[in-house]
Amino acid sequence: MITISTIQDIRRALGYSPARQSGDQRNYDPKIGFVPTMGALHEGHGALIRRARAENQYVVVSIFVNPTQFHQAEDLEKYPRTMDTDLAYCQSLGVDAVFAPTAREMYPDELLTSVEVAKISSGLCGDFRPGHFRAVATVVAKLFNIVPADRAYFGEKDAQQLAVIRKMAADLNFPIEIVPLETVREPDGLAMSSRNQRLAPTDRLLAPALYQALQAAAHAIRGGSSLDMAKQAALHVLARVPAMRTEYLEIVDAHTMQPLKSITSEVCIAAAVWLGGVRLIDNLRVQHMSRLGSPS
Amino acid sequence: MITISTIQDIRRALGYSPARQSGDQRNYDPKIGFVPTMGALHEGHGALIRRARAENQYVVVSIFVNPTQFHQAEDLEKYPRTMDTDLAYCQSLGVDAVFAPTAREMYPDELLTSVEVAKISSGLCGDFRPGHFRAVATVVAKLFNIVPADRAYFGEKDAQQLAVIRKMAADLNFPIEIVPLETVREPDGLAMSSRNQRLAPTDRLLAPALYQALQAAAHAIRGGSSLDMAKQAALHVLARVPAMRTEYLEIVDAHTMQPLKSITSEVCIAAAVWLGGVRLIDNLRVQHMSRLGSPS
Repeated sequence: MITISTIQDIRRALGYSPARQSGDQRNYDPKIGFVPTMGALHEGHGALIRRARAENQYVVVSIFVNPTQFHQAEDLEKYPRTMDTDLAYCQSLGVDAVFAPTAREMYPDELLTSVEVAKISSGLCGDFRPGHFRAVATVVAKLFNIVPADRAYFGEKDAQQLAVIRKMAADLNFPIEIVPLETVREPDGLAMSSRNQRLAPTDRLLAPALYQALQAAAHAIRGGSSLDMAKQAALHVLARVPAMRTEYLEIVDAHTMQPLKSITSEVCIAAAVWLGGVRLIDNLRVQHMSRLGSPS
Repeated sequence: MITISTIQDIRRALGYSPARQSGDQRNYDPKIGFVPTMGALHEGHGALIRRARAENQYVVVSIFVNPTQFHQAEDLEKYPRTMDTDLAYCQSLGVDAVFAPTAREMYPDELLTSVEVAKISSGLCGDFRPGHFRAVATVVAKLFNIVPADRAYFGEKDAQQLAVIRKMAADLNFPIEIVPLETVREPDGLAMSSRNQRLAPTDRLLAPALYQALQAAAHAIRGGSSLDMAKQAALHVLARVPAMRTEYLEIVDAHTMQPLKSITSEVCIAAAVWLGGVRLIDNLRVQHMSRLGSPS
């Protein structure tokens, strides 16, 4: 495994990668799998990397805590950084190259260009983190141009981010397949997140209430509840944990991430909560069961 | 020369281009030169294509009248379309592939993603064509992802567009060298433009006044005039042609395209005029002569 910090070097490494060099046949076309991360790697990232490893000849992981996507300086400062452990983890999973640039390498001059995905970026996290998804779409566009990947892997835990990136890649014709992976959870249901390690021990015990709330809403929807009733079922679970402050809990269209008036297609139940100064998000997708033939 | 209308086919053609296929040596790395156009090709485009031909193994010209960058439906409708002549011209210049997609091929779904370049997109044409440079930056980002070029060629006649695209390519790390080429002019000085063919014969005779106005300002600057005096010199020339309505005439920083308070570096004198329902733009760059040692 090689660790690379400059754009020039990662391009050189990929242009002349062992996988690319080993092809003597004219049509040998080794594929590059790419897992963009902000480091503090956990088993959720591990699942992305394993999938990339299984599907590609060459695997690149980027580790870059992108400053432009943090709304609050404090949140950026507190974001966990565990580079040595991350590199060892990547090595153990058979990663070929880790791209870990500095902020100066990624933003050498005043950045004037921004990539914005309308509609999908609004609502949910978009309403509480102004400019967040614009910064995410922009840095992912940069990374896609730096790492000439064939496939890029993203977790479904960040459902709105995934929807933004998918639409961005499609609209701008990036020649990259976006591969989504199911959220990886702790045994008690808490979605894996780099932020989990910032939870105080007592808060860690309370944290699974977020997932339980989403499950309550999903259960209600499967049982034929209205959108409002499903939402109430989730909020009821959250209300049992006074230490947890709900930022939002919404049931949206699973593809557009936009508000629904009623449950008609696949929905995404998405929530953000605060627990002891740590922001946690999670979501569940639910396929609506047809209510045709139900008595009422 | 091949003519291609779908994204899938141009990718296939470039992945398996004769240039790319002929390389048996491991390190043979044929370069792709790309000239994005809106068709109605003239000698200005010809200069771009010749330069691309000289510098690359494979040359791609795109012909796409991008609807999103037109503010007025009428302007889009009246934009000249001369596909047969364009294809013959490309062939005569040794172009390998022409990519001529339909609007539906480029915009199959609702486009939600936009690429915006702040600052550089404002002022000059940006003020009179709302959303124009956002649409230009977005379609060029799409084309750069569709045609995996090593170099892309743009004319300096569209100075603000060139500045927007250069900054966009740098900020988003597109692995493409942007090559600018000097404006090609008719013998009487009129900058080559696809719109020139829409000029009535009498207006065509008046049109060189635009370039003469820019020259007057350049002459004034070289002679040590202030920014205001240089601008007045240009406006004085334009005032002699009542049929010509000045949309703007500005002297800006040649790199940022932003307004200047005084002349301190390389400047760009840029103007847009209307003549018989046709909008013409032109610009001249002038290196400011040091005024150190001048008597006043």
